[in-house]
Amino acid sequence: MSDITPDGPRRRISLRTTRMEALSDGIFAIAATLLVLDLAIPAVTSKNVGHQLAEQWPTYVAYLVSFATIGNAWLNHSVITEYLDRADAILLRLNLALLFFVSVLPFPTHMLAEYLSNEGDERIAVTIYGLNLLAISGFISIVWHYALWQGLVTKDNSEADVRALTTKLDPSLVSYVVVIGIGLWRPGVAVVFYFVIALFMIIPFRTVLRELRHRRRASPPHPR
Amino acid sequence: MSDITPDGPRRRISLRTTRMEALSDGIFAIAATLLVLDLAIPAVTSKNVGHQLAEQWPTYVAYLVSFATIGNAWLNHSVITEYLDRADAILLRLNLALLFFVSVLPFPTHMLAEYLSNEGDERIAVTIYGLNLLAISGFISIVWHYALWQGLVTKDNSEADVRALTTKLDPSLVSYVVVIGIGLWRPGVAVVFYFVIALFMIIPFRTVLRELRHRRRASPPHPR
Amino acid sequence: MSDITPDGPRRRISLRTTRMEALSDGIFAIAATLLVLDLAIPAVTSKNVGHQLAEQWPTYVAYLVSFATIGNAWLNHSVITEYLDRADAILLRLNLALLFFVSVLPFPTHMLAEYLSNEGDERIAVTIYGLNLLAISGFISIVWHYALWQGLVTKDNSEADVRALTTKLDPSLVSYVVVIGIGLWRPGVAVVFYFVIALFMIIPFRTVLRELRHRRRASPPHPR
Amino acid sequence: MSDITPDGPRRRISLRTTRMEALSDGIFAIAATLLVLDLAIPAVTSKNVGHQLAEQWPTYVAYLVSFATIGNAWLNHSVITEYLDRADAILLRLNLALLFFVSVLPFPTHMLAEYLSNEGDERIAVTIYGLNLLAISGFISIVWHYALWQGLVTKDNSEADVRALTTKLDPSLVSYVVVIGIGLWRPGVAVVFYFVIALFMIIPFRTVLRELRHRRRASPPHPR
Repeated sequence: MSDITPDGPRRRISLRTTRMEALSDGIFAIAATLLVLDLAIPAVTSKNVGHQLAEQWPTYVAYLVSFATIGNAWLNHSVITEYLDRADAILLRLNLALLFFVSVLPFPTHMLAEYLSNEGDERIAVTIYGLNLLAISGFISIVWHYALWQGLVTKDNSEADVRALTTKLDPSLVSYVVVIGIGLWRPGVAVVFYFVIALFMIIPFRTVLRELRHRRRASPPHPR
Repeated sequence: MSDITPDGPRRRISLRTTRMEALSDGIFAIAATLLVLDLAIPAVTSKNVGHQLAEQWPTYVAYLVSFATIGNAWLNHSVITEYLDRADAILLRLNLALLFFVSVLPFPTHMLAEYLSNEGDERIAVTIYGLNLLAISGFISIVWHYALWQGLVTKDNSEADVRALTTKLDPSLVSYVVVIGIGLWRPGVAVVFYFVIALFMIIPFRTVLRELRHRRRASPPHPR
Repeated sequence: MSDITPDGPRRRISLRTTRMEALSDGIFAIAATLLVLDLAIPAVTSKNVGHQLAEQWPTYVAYLVSFATIGNAWLNHSVITEYLDRADAILLRLNLALLFFVSVLPFPTHMLAEYLSNEGDERIAVTIYGLNLLAISGFISIVWHYALWQGLVTKDNSEADVRALTTKLDPSLVSYVVVIGIGLWRPGVAVVFYFVIALFMIIPFRTVLRELRHRRRASPPHPR
Repeated sequence: MSDITPDGPRRRISLRTTRMEALSDGIFAIAATLLVLDLAIPAVTSKNVGHQLAEQWPTYVAYLVSFATIGNAWLNHSVITEYLDRADAILLRLNLALLFFVSVLPFPTHMLAEYLSNEGDERIAVTIYGLNLLAISGFISIVWHYALWQGLVTKDNSEADVRALTTKLDPSLVSYVVVIGIGLWRPGVAVVFYFVIALFMIIPFRTVLRELRHRRRASPPHPR
């Protein structure tokens, strides 16, 4: 992509964000759906299928946490692209790095399911899993901060909105770092925390509360 | 996402529906296509391949019912987004919950295929399968009712259209609950019913009849 | 979807074609890519890997024919949606039937690869494969004829264009029926024919020839 | 598609590029995500899982190189479609050929991972892998040159931009040919080179350097 332009000393290629959005939606969708391939069907044995399913609980926990994490990453990503005006060559690459960690998540998820409740190896599996979650959150923050820094965000967003998204993205990084530390010491506890983080991110407790409180005060905005 | 805005006491982030549609189309497409991975190829043995294929009928029944259910869910979902004006943060999350149950469907489908005609375990497999179908239908209704409640639907739709979609979505919930009940008692019969429900949803019998009746009366609208 | 409208005695819901296109592109893309999962990696044995790959030729032939057929179906489908003005509820369902046969293609492709050069069962595999190709071609024609019949095609297309697409879609149906017949008698020959049909569809021999002839006569339209 | 039109001696059907972009994004996304299916989970054995993961290094190298190559192909492809005004029937077919080689990449990637550090067969695996990378780069160049030749590129791009993209796409072809040659002689060295090529393509060293240099001189364009 050319670097010298008539407009000034430097110029970056400026791209529509549609293809970046399409590739991202594709990879988010596929990664979320591929997770299901790891849900093994209990074999037809003398054992009751209900018991067998119950024994597979680590698989289901890993599946839920990963799906919720991918879902939340997609939510944040779609808010970011809502604000984006255009993309440049570096933003697309940072986004590819994010998509790399999204698309690889089924692998540590599978490892987690395999090694959970398997003393010794559990620690390695939980740590690799946590690092992957951290990388996803980290690159979402990096994409957002890069877009802000380079002025790729549409001008008509209020300062408050932009600041609100920033204060939403960055704290999750800290919580992942803390839980990875906990996991080195107590892997099982870390998995519970990853589940809680995912739940908190995916269920907008504050919004729901506010909505309910609001509803008691006023009539619904669009009654039918 | 910020909650206090200059416009009034509360404000929700308002998003285009394009990315929600793209992620949904991706997950519907992948879930529908992943089902085929469970169609096992008969091994090359002394046995005739035709016989082997015929013996695998539960796999094909499960495949057909699941494909038809996903197809019908997509149909309803695309009518809903046709009416949507914009999305908010909670709608996106309800949609993610719907997509969770769509993307997980290959798992109970596989279980159904494995355990059908396997007395005892068949009951558990059929019930889990039915609960998954119910969850898909349920979350489609929830997404629609939430959008109506929050006024996310474009204003230029006639009351009649909106009511028509509502009366189309809700009855399927009842039929799923009834068939899950039947399945606890007679699993094989429930599968037949799931197939019939899917057929009724996917083949618009009333529209076809009307179309044919109309055709006899008038000339086709666009003859060539 | 409501059937009685203020505009007249009957009314169909009229939908944008964007979601139908998105779901279709998703399923075409996934079906085409899933085919690669059937390309088995030769095991690390004493045997030379080159020899092993050469022995797997039926897999590669099946892969190529299926990819070319899906590619060609997508080409025709994208020309059809280019002409479409809007969709109705039945068109979406006919399109879902088409997508069903597209998404199921990896299964008979796998069977074909497994049973080719396996006398006896080969006949069944080749016939099922041919019926799948016929169903894809058939539903593409049905979607197109239905859209014409119901006046869902944009008015600004010339009669000639519309007729040209029709005369392009329908003959392939005849050739598939003929080759299925041949396959009942000589399965191996039918596979060669399926390959030839796919090649003829995917390589626009006439256009290339015309282009070359045109080039000799005139200068390229956009020289740089 | 009709060839004789009232507008002149010849005419090609002119299509929007949206469906071509959607199919391409789908196949790029799926091919990139399917790669993860080849990352085998170490079995639960007496052996330490960390050691087992370390022993699988060829798998991870192959995964990284393939993901980076697909990512870079997508980057170039999205710049090309940014310039495209419309598509014709041949461009769509050339694009399908490109997508064929993108979607098949998981196969040689798997072979590479299997045969790396396996003297004798390694050579064949590395060569097939290199030919696949060359085919992807080659067809991206062909799509671009065909679009230029046929005047499918929007007129409002500066000559400099267009030339810049051309000089970016073509040299990678040469480097692949050279490394395939090296691989016939020293397969392991070729894999290192494929990794280096992918890194150079994916990390825009020059842009980053320029950006940093620019930053030192001036204030960031959009400070917050």
